[in-house]
Amino acid sequence: MASLTPHEVAVMFMALGTLLASARLLGELAKRYHQPAVLGELLAGIFLGPTVLGALAPQVAGALFPSQGGSALVLDGITTLAITLFLLVAGMEVDLSTIWRQRKAAVTVGISGIVGPFALGFATAWMAPRVMGKDPSADPLIFALFIATALSISALPVIAKTLMDLDLYRTEVGMTVIAAAVLNDLAGWIIFAILLGMLGTPAGHGLPIGHTIGITLGFVVFMLTLGRWLAHRIFPWIQAHASWPGGVLSFILSVTLFGAAFTEWIGIHAIFGAFLVGVAMGDSAHLREQTRSIIDEFISFFFAPLFFASVGLKVNFAANFDLVLVTVVLIIACIGKVAGCALGARLVGMAARTSWALGFAMNARGTMEIILGLLALQFGLIRERTFVALVIMALVTSLMSGPIMQRILKRKKPSLFLDLLETRSFLNRLSASNAQEAIHALVQAACPLRGLKPEEVEAAVWQREEVMPTGVGHGLALPHARIDALSKSVVAIGLSRAGIDFGSDDGQPAHIIGLLLTPKGNTSLQLELLADITRTFSDREFREKALQARNYTEFLALLKLKSSKRERSIETD
Amino acid sequence: MASLTPHEVAVMFMALGTLLASARLLGELAKRYHQPAVLGELLAGIFLGPTVLGALAPQVAGALFPSQGGSALVLDGITTLAITLFLLVAGMEVDLSTIWRQRKAAVTVGISGIVGPFALGFATAWMAPRVMGKDPSADPLIFALFIATALSISALPVIAKTLMDLDLYRTEVGMTVIAAAVLNDLAGWIIFAILLGMLGTPAGHGLPIGHTIGITLGFVVFMLTLGRWLAHRIFPWIQAHASWPGGVLSFILSVTLFGAAFTEWIGIHAIFGAFLVGVAMGDSAHLREQTRSIIDEFISFFFAPLFFASVGLKVNFAANFDLVLVTVVLIIACIGKVAGCALGARLVGMAARTSWALGFAMNARGTMEIILGLLALQFGLIRERTFVALVIMALVTSLMSGPIMQRILKRKKPSLFLDLLETRSFLNRLSASNAQEAIHALVQAACPLRGLKPEEVEAAVWQREEVMPTGVGHGLALPHARIDALSKSVVAIGLSRAGIDFGSDDGQPAHIIGLLLTPKGNTSLQLELLADITRTFSDREFREKALQARNYTEFLALLKLKSSKRERSIETD
Repeated sequence: MASLTPHEVAVMFMALGTLLASARLLGELAKRYHQPAVLGELLAGIFLGPTVLGALAPQVAGALFPSQGGSALVLDGITTLAITLFLLVAGMEVDLSTIWRQRKAAVTVGISGIVGPFALGFATAWMAPRVMGKDPSADPLIFALFIATALSISALPVIAKTLMDLDLYRTEVGMTVIAAAVLNDLAGWIIFAILLGMLGTPAGHGLPIGHTIGITLGFVVFMLTLGRWLAHRIFPWIQAHASWPGGVLSFILSVTLFGAAFTEWIGIHAIFGAFLVGVAMGDSAHLREQTRSIIDEFISFFFAPLFFASVGLKVNFAANFDLVLVTVVLIIACIGKVAGCALGARLVGMAARTSWALGFAMNARGTMEIILGLLALQFGLIRERTFVALVIMALVTSLMSGPIMQRILKRKKPSLFLDLLETRSFLNRLSASNAQEAIHALVQAACPLRGLKPEEVEAAVWQREEVMPTGVGHGLALPHARIDALSKSVVAIGLSRAGIDFGSDDGQPAHIIGLLLTPKGNTSLQLELLADITRTFSDREFREKALQARNYTEFLALLKLKSSKRERSIETD
Repeated sequence: MASLTPHEVAVMFMALGTLLASARLLGELAKRYHQPAVLGELLAGIFLGPTVLGALAPQVAGALFPSQGGSALVLDGITTLAITLFLLVAGMEVDLSTIWRQRKAAVTVGISGIVGPFALGFATAWMAPRVMGKDPSADPLIFALFIATALSISALPVIAKTLMDLDLYRTEVGMTVIAAAVLNDLAGWIIFAILLGMLGTPAGHGLPIGHTIGITLGFVVFMLTLGRWLAHRIFPWIQAHASWPGGVLSFILSVTLFGAAFTEWIGIHAIFGAFLVGVAMGDSAHLREQTRSIIDEFISFFFAPLFFASVGLKVNFAANFDLVLVTVVLIIACIGKVAGCALGARLVGMAARTSWALGFAMNARGTMEIILGLLALQFGLIRERTFVALVIMALVTSLMSGPIMQRILKRKKPSLFLDLLETRSFLNRLSASNAQEAIHALVQAACPLRGLKPEEVEAAVWQREEVMPTGVGHGLALPHARIDALSKSVVAIGLSRAGIDFGSDDGQPAHIIGLLLTPKGNTSLQLELLADITRTFSDREFREKALQARNYTEFLALLKLKSSKRERSIETD
């Protein structure tokens, strides 16, 4: 039986470890700057691949990521498994019932959002195939259809995240955007699967093209109807008769692997099978939150970073950067998508401003375009420079979506005190015995952070405190003031185990004291931050845990944990 | 860049899907009959490999699991990754503080439990290497040391599960057994790592043997001291500054991959690095339950079954079955381990009966022996028939451990009503309006299951009910009787949304009515089952959920979910 040599095994683990660690590190950095994690993951691969490391230290790059031999094949196999499992998760996020609830708007916007970029993309690729980087051996019709499809698919996860950031997720616009994007995704993938079928690659095991397309469509219809129904019926049975949650977990993964094998075998790609299995399974109300979260977390934080980093290993992004092509692709993609979607939104009666915002929301591409481009590259449909242009287009449209919507809708991210807290403004053991001492200590901690004069600030806070005490009950006090000289708010938190009287209505001493200094001009900001702190500490159990924090890091960990739980409960709503 | 052909990709997914699905299916079946899941997983591989499918339909087996080419290499790479990640989980289960708490008993029993089988195994392998299946090219000393080590390692997960089944996990014997087994595991693996280092395989990158052993010991010491301390320090920082739980998740997995690459590179095997990383990380109190459970579940139900099923693909278990060798290995392993451990237990002052029970508890091998045997096979240290004998020894000792301890200690598995409930004895919509009608309906459902006469049973239950009503409050009623003709208890459950008066002290009507018929002779059984039902439904929220069950499957799913949570809370205690 063929097996790897010990050296190949060592290289495999080293390569996987390097890819995972660097992808996740840059992914976290990207998130820190409010950008999608996939941006960092791709950059990690670009650094490790031919673009940077391969150019600077070809021997190191060659030893770590050999291009031939057992390690290279295994790395290819594992990243193929990784992207296939990632598509399972993407499929599980597709909620067919959302489309149904918003069907009129979703269908109109969804279709106009495909037709716009599809028509523009097809026309350009058909008329100027060389500019668009057609591989000389590729069929011009299929090439044009591919470019058209690649420009049409929206990125559901990026869009959902942007809407959440702007607090628009639960609004009507938000739900319409999500429903339209889901429909868009589904339609785009089906078109692309048919395209791959039309290529009649050797993978098709000699099936005539018509058969491949017929089988593909039949499989789609089967998974969205009978497949869904079966999954919904089988889950409770597995939960009753097998280990939990392991039974359902391995059932889903087995079916995914079989689905992937099937679609690969009929000549389209493994990822389609996984995606459709995800759609069919993810919709069932019997699929419990814990099972879903195990699959989601492990795949998103192990397999997905491995795949996205590996993309950078395959292509030299510097050598294949073609400014004209990048610009053309970017412009066509944006005009087609934004105008198409906005038009659709106007048709179903949305206001002009909202329609444009919706257009830019749908304009975000992301992971899906990249996967699609990579497949096209592997199938010999496009050249590397077109792939690079598609990746850049996907990233740029994702990055611009949030800021532009913010500007159009004049929405802002809700202000969170967590973003303002710093090590130096956290006093773990506040030794003050009364409100005045406590305010003094907190002001002393907060002022240096913004170059404020402690005396003036303390006077302002104390003046406010005397008007009406700021003990809000439940062991929480929130002394605050609006400061003229301030341009960015500052928060200081002090913990007092003994408790300090802040004159709250419930007569309880305050254990958590939050000082809040905001710019004078902005009234709403103060209210937002006060509400955010109050909400964060509204749970008694959480307050007690917070009081046990031994240092800033532990306190921050608790806060992050809580806010991630809150986000999760919105996402899974 | 080397990549798989579409055909190889399809074969890879088909092979993985087949392995996973069949391993999990047989694994669940094994658990149904109270046997370790790994038994079923190994059997799945034996069916799919050269032993059965390869012999009956060589073409099918060859197409599904090719022995050459890209798919074979990738399958080898993925199963190597799988076993490495499984060792991470095994390492995370090692709780060093348990050893410390029970240090005196643990060290004595742990050491005597190694010395016994080690001495016997070494003597036999040294004196009769041909009987024990030494590969002619292997060094006789290293071979004897390997056999000695292979017979010495206990299987922590199997032992823990057996103790839990017998309700011994929290007793003093239980804790001593666990602590000794942990120590045993740790020592056994370190010895084996040194052995592999002594082999001086090409993997060692030409390091002198002394260096490999020195580096191995240094790495062990580093991971158990500084590595542990670092992990404990870093976790809160990651939790505070990165996504949660994804940040910690990918940190652990990255470090595991690097650890694996390192140990593979120095010439021992990737799994040791992963195991030690698991020990260092799993001990931290900062590692949260959710992160632990994501890693544990995904690896146990995806990677582990893939690996254990793949073992069966590598060896023909029928052709390499050698009755003499199997018997010798089994006898030496049992005598050495049981006598060694029992002696150690006597030395620390345990009673004779308890000491023997402890010996049989420690006698369980399991997954670890199999992994170790496979490595020895790959490193050319043993032949296939010795591998087969080791696998059979591991399985047999695991299977006999529970029943023998049960007999020695006269312990029994606690009786659970869940094991007695059947579809036909579950009445989802009990239409009775009073206690007598409810008892009538439940007796009618229960009696056919054991061939009882409903009239007599109903009279007995009603007689008991009239002595004192069986409404135990909180909406639960438990009519019951001891029946002469009965050899196995029977339980029937009826749900009444309207509620039925069963004269409970709190005046509340009963919504969940459990009829309990037990054999006349066994008084304790009735009490155990009554307590079990009462405990199960003691939580109000759970009762409400149970009442909403639409059918038996949903009801059972709820019960299983609850009991798995209970088990989990014991395991992680």
